[in-house]
Amino acid sequence: MQLRMDGIFELLDTKATGPGAKIARLIHQVGIALGVAAMVLATEPSIEAHAGRLIDGVFWTVAVLFAVEYIMRLAIAPWAHWAHRGESWLARWHFAKSFFGLIDFAGTWPLIALAAGMNPDPARLFGALWLIKLTPYAEGLDLVGRVLKTARGPLLSLFLGFLMVLLTAATLAYVLEGEGQPQGFGSIPLALWWGIVTLTTVGYGDVVPQTAAGRILAGMVMVSGIGVFALWAGILATTFSDEMRRRAFLRTWDLVARVPYFNGLGAGIIADVARLLKVWDVAAGTTVMRRGQPGDCMYFIGSGEISVKIQPEPFRLKEGAFFGEIALITGEPRSATAVAETDCQLLALDIADFRELAARHPDLTAVIDQEAKRRQAQFQSSDD
Amino acid sequence: MQLRMDGIFELLDTKATGPGAKIARLIHQVGIALGVAAMVLATEPSIEAHAGRLIDGVFWTVAVLFAVEYIMRLAIAPWAHWAHRGESWLARWHFAKSFFGLIDFAGTWPLIALAAGMNPDPARLFGALWLIKLTPYAEGLDLVGRVLKTARGPLLSLFLGFLMVLLTAATLAYVLEGEGQPQGFGSIPLALWWGIVTLTTVGYGDVVPQTAAGRILAGMVMVSGIGVFALWAGILATTFSDEMRRRAFLRTWDLVARVPYFNGLGAGIIADVARLLKVWDVAAGTTVMRRGQPGDCMYFIGSGEISVKIQPEPFRLKEGAFFGEIALITGEPRSATAVAETDCQLLALDIADFRELAARHPDLTAVIDQEAKRRQAQFQSSDD
Amino acid sequence: MQLRMDGIFELLDTKATGPGAKIARLIHQVGIALGVAAMVLATEPSIEAHAGRLIDGVFWTVAVLFAVEYIMRLAIAPWAHWAHRGESWLARWHFAKSFFGLIDFAGTWPLIALAAGMNPDPARLFGALWLIKLTPYAEGLDLVGRVLKTARGPLLSLFLGFLMVLLTAATLAYVLEGEGQPQGFGSIPLALWWGIVTLTTVGYGDVVPQTAAGRILAGMVMVSGIGVFALWAGILATTFSDEMRRRAFLRTWDLVARVPYFNGLGAGIIADVARLLKVWDVAAGTTVMRRGQPGDCMYFIGSGEISVKIQPEPFRLKEGAFFGEIALITGEPRSATAVAETDCQLLALDIADFRELAARHPDLTAVIDQEAKRRQAQFQSSDD
Amino acid sequence: MQLRMDGIFELLDTKATGPGAKIARLIHQVGIALGVAAMVLATEPSIEAHAGRLIDGVFWTVAVLFAVEYIMRLAIAPWAHWAHRGESWLARWHFAKSFFGLIDFAGTWPLIALAAGMNPDPARLFGALWLIKLTPYAEGLDLVGRVLKTARGPLLSLFLGFLMVLLTAATLAYVLEGEGQPQGFGSIPLALWWGIVTLTTVGYGDVVPQTAAGRILAGMVMVSGIGVFALWAGILATTFSDEMRRRAFLRTWDLVARVPYFNGLGAGIIADVARLLKVWDVAAGTTVMRRGQPGDCMYFIGSGEISVKIQPEPFRLKEGAFFGEIALITGEPRSATAVAETDCQLLALDIADFRELAARHPDLTAVIDQEAKRRQAQFQSSDD
Repeated sequence: MQLRMDGIFELLDTKATGPGAKIARLIHQVGIALGVAAMVLATEPSIEAHAGRLIDGVFWTVAVLFAVEYIMRLAIAPWAHWAHRGESWLARWHFAKSFFGLIDFAGTWPLIALAAGMNPDPARLFGALWLIKLTPYAEGLDLVGRVLKTARGPLLSLFLGFLMVLLTAATLAYVLEGEGQPQGFGSIPLALWWGIVTLTTVGYGDVVPQTAAGRILAGMVMVSGIGVFALWAGILATTFSDEMRRRAFLRTWDLVARVPYFNGLGAGIIADVARLLKVWDVAAGTTVMRRGQPGDCMYFIGSGEISVKIQPEPFRLKEGAFFGEIALITGEPRSATAVAETDCQLLALDIADFRELAARHPDLTAVIDQEAKRRQAQFQSSDD
Repeated sequence: MQLRMDGIFELLDTKATGPGAKIARLIHQVGIALGVAAMVLATEPSIEAHAGRLIDGVFWTVAVLFAVEYIMRLAIAPWAHWAHRGESWLARWHFAKSFFGLIDFAGTWPLIALAAGMNPDPARLFGALWLIKLTPYAEGLDLVGRVLKTARGPLLSLFLGFLMVLLTAATLAYVLEGEGQPQGFGSIPLALWWGIVTLTTVGYGDVVPQTAAGRILAGMVMVSGIGVFALWAGILATTFSDEMRRRAFLRTWDLVARVPYFNGLGAGIIADVARLLKVWDVAAGTTVMRRGQPGDCMYFIGSGEISVKIQPEPFRLKEGAFFGEIALITGEPRSATAVAETDCQLLALDIADFRELAARHPDLTAVIDQEAKRRQAQFQSSDD
Repeated sequence: MQLRMDGIFELLDTKATGPGAKIARLIHQVGIALGVAAMVLATEPSIEAHAGRLIDGVFWTVAVLFAVEYIMRLAIAPWAHWAHRGESWLARWHFAKSFFGLIDFAGTWPLIALAAGMNPDPARLFGALWLIKLTPYAEGLDLVGRVLKTARGPLLSLFLGFLMVLLTAATLAYVLEGEGQPQGFGSIPLALWWGIVTLTTVGYGDVVPQTAAGRILAGMVMVSGIGVFALWAGILATTFSDEMRRRAFLRTWDLVARVPYFNGLGAGIIADVARLLKVWDVAAGTTVMRRGQPGDCMYFIGSGEISVKIQPEPFRLKEGAFFGEIALITGEPRSATAVAETDCQLLALDIADFRELAARHPDLTAVIDQEAKRRQAQFQSSDD
Repeated sequence: MQLRMDGIFELLDTKATGPGAKIARLIHQVGIALGVAAMVLATEPSIEAHAGRLIDGVFWTVAVLFAVEYIMRLAIAPWAHWAHRGESWLARWHFAKSFFGLIDFAGTWPLIALAAGMNPDPARLFGALWLIKLTPYAEGLDLVGRVLKTARGPLLSLFLGFLMVLLTAATLAYVLEGEGQPQGFGSIPLALWWGIVTLTTVGYGDVVPQTAAGRILAGMVMVSGIGVFALWAGILATTFSDEMRRRAFLRTWDLVARVPYFNGLGAGIIADVARLLKVWDVAAGTTVMRRGQPGDCMYFIGSGEISVKIQPEPFRLKEGAFFGEIALITGEPRSATAVAETDCQLLALDIADFRELAARHPDLTAVIDQEAKRRQAQFQSSDD
């Protein structure tokens, strides 16, 4: 029994790399897409009339699939949560109230609503929640989340300022335009509607001030809207920039340790180098560089294997090796094609950073130069 | 008498942390929310007809509350302003003409207007000013204010450019479209209305150019609008970034001195370290870190007390101590839960910065490593 | 004669600081404001009917004033252009074809148009050009200009991309919607109008796609619009940031040399320090700091004189001196008020930068500490 | 035959600098502009009626021109692709499936469509593709492309978030407004149209929520729209900034090596210096600096020749020389005019960077000082 559960866990793990897990994920994603599309199209009478049965079939199939998925995830929770491996029900409760647990639970609502006696038409609308199930696949979304969390202080303050401007504008508009246009500005709630439509620069045009004073007020609201917008963008840009650098550094650091070439470096330099390198995840079979193309970076292999297609016979490079340095040194196009044999993690060193590194720490690049010369010699002799 | 005044001062101080002050602040904030809501809803006839009495009751209660608050603040002014502690009336005058004094004075206008013989309906509109009373609670708002002050030169210049484009566009639109659409472009003031609606990309659509030349002009105005917007955002982003770094540095600096661990550092390094740390204000009872969660930073205690829940018995850490370093070193999830016993100020050191610090100043992190090992040993022996 | 010309030159110089020049500038700015306002209001029949004479009077008075100004500037050109001081007519020609010469020439167009036999109504419209005469007063406008020039490469490329998207969208919209709505999408020029209104997110709503395919296309155009906008903002933010730093450095550098305190610094440090200081132009009579307020920076006097109001008697500080350091060191509010006796240029050192400087170069701040102690001792003894 | 092909290759090369190539490029660009304009105008019946023949003539001439160009580019492919110089057909196939090959192929579609029996009116619409042929001239466009590629992770995640907000908003709007306004919110696809128009802040106003709940929802959607926009801008700004620095460094590095002055520098400094310099491409005949103007940078000649107009006789400077340093040192306006004799690549050193360089590495600027003094002496003696 435990073995099967392990297998299911393997299948449902969003980070597993086996072929089964890949297929499971594909089915999952296609299911979300089909289910949401069915939910959307079912509300359109002209489509519903022609293909109602098909749409209903697709929708409820997906609904059953996600309900089964949720039950399975509950069942395997003890295998997924290391902290509670011994206590099955605690682990299940832990999963159920976790972020992903709640997402998966929300995915079962259409079926639950139907079971609770709701009509199929409104029950189907809960399918909109399925889109949230894509969250685990969006790697950058937690980055966006962290940015919003870090900058929440200024963002909230700005939002308060936004509300102050909005209320003041609405009150003044109510005073200035209320008599002339009672249907548009006859109360402050009505004027707030005009205010937010204007302050966000949406501008439906369903309510437009007519008096001179009202229009001057509107002009000031519009300019404030641009200002709020710009401040918002400025805050997010600043925070995002810091966060992106932090994340890149962390990813790189974990891989740098696996490359023997960097082991000899003094402790002070290694942080510098880790800042320069960029991690690149490569799927098996990808062509990393192609003969004849211009070369703007070299690579260190953090994990996986690369095969370099050179005459007379290709050779393989393993974890810790580097390649692509010849084009950087000579400035000529790539002299060989390199293909990933397995899923790889590469550390790319850009030509700009390579040159700067070479200038600051000439000893560092001496090893690379030497290897490049050895390979060029070998390559040219085989060319003849 | 003086003792009572001190008590009231304590209650009304926006930075006091006692339970009385917290309740006073909550009442204050709820009062603002209720009062403003009542002011907004009272203008809507359909709501006023049903709940007019309730709304009026809420509004005027809040109005009285804020009038009383203003009088109390005037009374305690000598206790609040250290510079004029001896001269009561000077201190009161000082408060009355200060920023917060004017805000609180504005909060009494609905009552004053009523007292001056105004009808309740228009008098109620002054309640919109109550939202400004939230300003002292928005910590980031003065940051936004400083940014606008620092960047006022380029922002004003840009605003002048904005006016030039606007006037030129309106004049040309008046020439091009004036004859065809006298109700929309028949004078430059009318054309200015179209201009600002277009330049800010609001686009109500109440006035739209019809001639080919007018539309080409409008297209150029729209693109200019985007450009102005973008420049504005660029200026604010740059300034904001600098200001946020300055503020973080100042907050950190004050706390770093209280952590003995940093005292031994050379003068040159301490500024580096202060840049890396981030201050985190924690209310008493907050769970700072939870066992089993991934750990991405360690903490130094700037003020307050932290209790670490470890078997067999939890221990308390005081000002100057650090915790959370084990997960950073081992890369495993948190091995213990930590809860703030009192309101705390923590200095968080992110994992990325910790690694960089460890690389640049290995001696610095040696102490942390040592303590981590001692704790792990203790923790594991108690696990057995 | 030459003496008079010198006087006029003094009056018209936008950078002169004498009282005559200040009044001349004020008249100039008020003239622009009045003239432009008159031009705008004269086109509105309802206002024209009541105050037509007054408006006309104001407008043509300003027009004559600016014509006289242009002639005077031409006359004094030999005094203004050092390079051609000897050759009067060359200097005048030089001025006439310079940027500011052309601006001032444009200011005379209403009169010229009237003289050329144009009706007053259209001739008055040239008054819109007067707004450009404000350019020399907007110090930040050339900064904006430099930013646009530096980033023109990517901006133009982006504009080309914008055009490609626009034309493709218009062509497709013409194909998809042309038959259904001939009045809105019946030709590509018409569809281009819809395209630009949508791509810039203005959205008048005068033309709206009705078919499903047309709406999907419109959705993609809208998202592209946001993207273009965002890229534009990103480019400008980056360039602006670099430019602002460059400018601040240049302004500071010129003043740092005048402060003896910085003369002793090694050549390497002085550039660091110059980056930290910020120039602040202070008009005579301004209160630079006020007793009892919190202090967040100290000042070095780059030029001018400052008077520090301290009991028993105030003292004056001249070029090269510093003040405001006590509050930075003690953390208490300002212990004295400082007022600018003449127009001054101050170099402000922020508290964050002061601390960092103190940490990195303790010798640097030792002098400041010493002076602060001497002053505090003096201040306290006089307090008794 | 081969010589002719070489000549054609020279003509069609977008980077060639000969006079023939310049004229060929001009014809190319004018052809694109005329062809696209003809395509656009031909759809407008009122213009077509008057100038239909002319427009048709222009369009099909350009179409033939581009078809001929494509055939010629195919023919000369073996000369352009070094990697396949020997194998003609392989080189042609390589070109045909390259990015630029596909662009040029797309340019022949109007003719192909006509040949395939399509009517001229729809066939003409393929002319919209000609605008893409401008891509090779937009140097910054690949920069934009690289930015989008680097930031694709967060951008896609954000787009997913955008879709989630959009679908949720549309579903809720369908529930809230569907009954009241079936023509605008009667199905989710209809509500999606309202959602995207609102979320992108376009706001046509063709569909506007009427219920209170619907308007509150709309307000939240608008604020989200601004937020998405701002995050997008923040991500792009960060990435763009890094990319622009990388590119500038690479361009400079290639030229620095040609300036003997920089050869003596230690390896560590040269990367610093390369970051400070900015490359400026100057066409033959351009005035690089003009006597009497203020000077804010000095120049090193990376390639080409500069002639300095000084009395009694001008002198020429070649690759590796520097000029413009006198104004930087004295602070006075330029003492001479410099004109590019050939197409040049100049390395500009800004005054701010020059001063910083002088402060950090005084030995570096000593050479420049010395040369400046020698030139000034020579210049002044010739002035007498």
